[in-house]
Amino acid sequence: MRRLIYSAIVLALPASLLADPLPSWSDSSAKQQIIAFVDKVTTPGTDGYVTPTDRVAVFDNDGTLWAEQPVYFQFIYAMDELAELAKEDPSVLTTPTLEAAANGDTSTVLEGGEDALLEVVSATHSGVSVDAFQTSVAEWLHTKRHPDTGLPYDQMTYQPMIELLRYLRDEGFTTYIVSGGGLHFMRVFADEAYGIPPNQVLGTYADSTYEIVDGTPTIIKAPAIAFVDDKEGKPINIERTIGKRPIMAVGNSDGDFAMLEWTTAGDGPRLGVLIHHTDAEREWAYDRDSHIGRLVDGLDKGPDMGWVIVDMAKDWSRVFTGSN
Amino acid sequence: MRRLIYSAIVLALPASLLADPLPSWSDSSAKQQIIAFVDKVTTPGTDGYVTPTDRVAVFDNDGTLWAEQPVYFQFIYAMDELAELAKEDPSVLTTPTLEAAANGDTSTVLEGGEDALLEVVSATHSGVSVDAFQTSVAEWLHTKRHPDTGLPYDQMTYQPMIELLRYLRDEGFTTYIVSGGGLHFMRVFADEAYGIPPNQVLGTYADSTYEIVDGTPTIIKAPAIAFVDDKEGKPINIERTIGKRPIMAVGNSDGDFAMLEWTTAGDGPRLGVLIHHTDAEREWAYDRDSHIGRLVDGLDKGPDMGWVIVDMAKDWSRVFTGSN
Repeated sequence: MRRLIYSAIVLALPASLLADPLPSWSDSSAKQQIIAFVDKVTTPGTDGYVTPTDRVAVFDNDGTLWAEQPVYFQFIYAMDELAELAKEDPSVLTTPTLEAAANGDTSTVLEGGEDALLEVVSATHSGVSVDAFQTSVAEWLHTKRHPDTGLPYDQMTYQPMIELLRYLRDEGFTTYIVSGGGLHFMRVFADEAYGIPPNQVLGTYADSTYEIVDGTPTIIKAPAIAFVDDKEGKPINIERTIGKRPIMAVGNSDGDFAMLEWTTAGDGPRLGVLIHHTDAEREWAYDRDSHIGRLVDGLDKGPDMGWVIVDMAKDWSRVFTGSN
Repeated sequence: MRRLIYSAIVLALPASLLADPLPSWSDSSAKQQIIAFVDKVTTPGTDGYVTPTDRVAVFDNDGTLWAEQPVYFQFIYAMDELAELAKEDPSVLTTPTLEAAANGDTSTVLEGGEDALLEVVSATHSGVSVDAFQTSVAEWLHTKRHPDTGLPYDQMTYQPMIELLRYLRDEGFTTYIVSGGGLHFMRVFADEAYGIPPNQVLGTYADSTYEIVDGTPTIIKAPAIAFVDDKEGKPINIERTIGKRPIMAVGNSDGDFAMLEWTTAGDGPRLGVLIHHTDAEREWAYDRDSHIGRLVDGLDKGPDMGWVIVDMAKDWSRVFTGSN
């Protein structure tokens, strides 16, 4: 009988009280606000209740779900790939930017701004089938290591965010990536690393062509960028692809501002979260002056908009999935 | 005891034998091939077994899930909407094409080909928020009737296809629309009419802009077409949005050829289905010479590629959802 009563009590409690769903988060205000939000939208019969089909949560990737320093990992892949291509055929290095990239001279390429980055990415991400490209990325992920941490890149995902994604899905949310990173690049690891399947990965993409290659229908990546999934592009892509406004959005840079703004402007309970990179010891500390993941508007306006600003150094007891 | 044995036998039978999952389909070869395919991919432990996450089925909309004569219903909406706009402000009719459209002169507009159609659609589908556009379409669907059948347009869905969609989902498939029709237009009725939620509706779309209107973040439809989800665009959009190759594709015109070709070229069991409009009495009979839903390549090459050609007159015992 005691057992029966105990079971009844346990069943009546929110799942979040039974076991800590976010063990790598310090017991801070940020964690409490996230859990309070999830409890609110999942408790039937209350004003804040949201049906599971509307529990859509969107996450930026670079700097939000995994690291992005010293430069976006996709760009490191592009430089490595370009160096490989140049070994076989040096004539592919048709410009000073491409030469610098093949030599691993990141800072020279970065001086060229976004155009230079796109030039390098385009040179290595086009003229191949989607299948061949993704095989190449998978091979790179299996063999290369990050220059500073020595970790495989897909072990530089943030353990607190992996827990958050899992917690949300356990609570009936659908979790999406909405990133300025390349769609085809991210899909290679998103399912295994984050539990996010291909149709829930939104990103930047180039044109594709449909061609019959040696009798086989094939989808080929073309050079021209068709859509940049950043800034205002994020809410536009979410509306176009998911077809509804999320109730929760998580990012780390001003590239995520419009996504959080649109998400949290909706009716009913909404949650905007910004990951603030404050941890120079365990990760990197950067915000207003960074060439990657610049965060100004989010810090200036986010708190007034009710967004949760996560202080990585204080709010996370652990950072990378691949190390403690 | 007899009851127990009976239960065991019932459990061992494929679900399709317990009750007819496709009651509006005649007991023809087409129906048998569809059911045999579904049984094959859903029977564990066999060569043909496909895990539920890979059971992706894609459907064209116009002429496949609902009717498309005398002209695409979205175009009828555009003409009706243009006539309404012109009542308030005749100066919107800036070209002979727009004047013809506002007067309901379909044939004049059709003589102008695809450009004329796009001109009319663009004039009525842009400069408004997605929300306002979809409210307008919903109102139109609730009030207007098809000129020939007198049915509400969303009752001119094909009952056999509604059954097929439901049957596939019952068998663990995810069902998508992949249509040349407008994304925002279709999403207004797809969930209620077909059980297909917004994120599983792929279609043609225009550019969008993200703007703060009177303090409210708003997504506005722009005039320029950004992507035409037809012909080669279909496999490209499927790869981009769903991120995997379907195992089943259903269409009715040469605009669906590439989608069926790409789908059925994959490894393992695949099914391509073409709906052939052969029923001049209950619906419309058209194929090679039609200005809408033209079907030539599908009839010439489809059978050799193993595609199932559904003869509407013979294979369907009932046509529209809204009438017998």
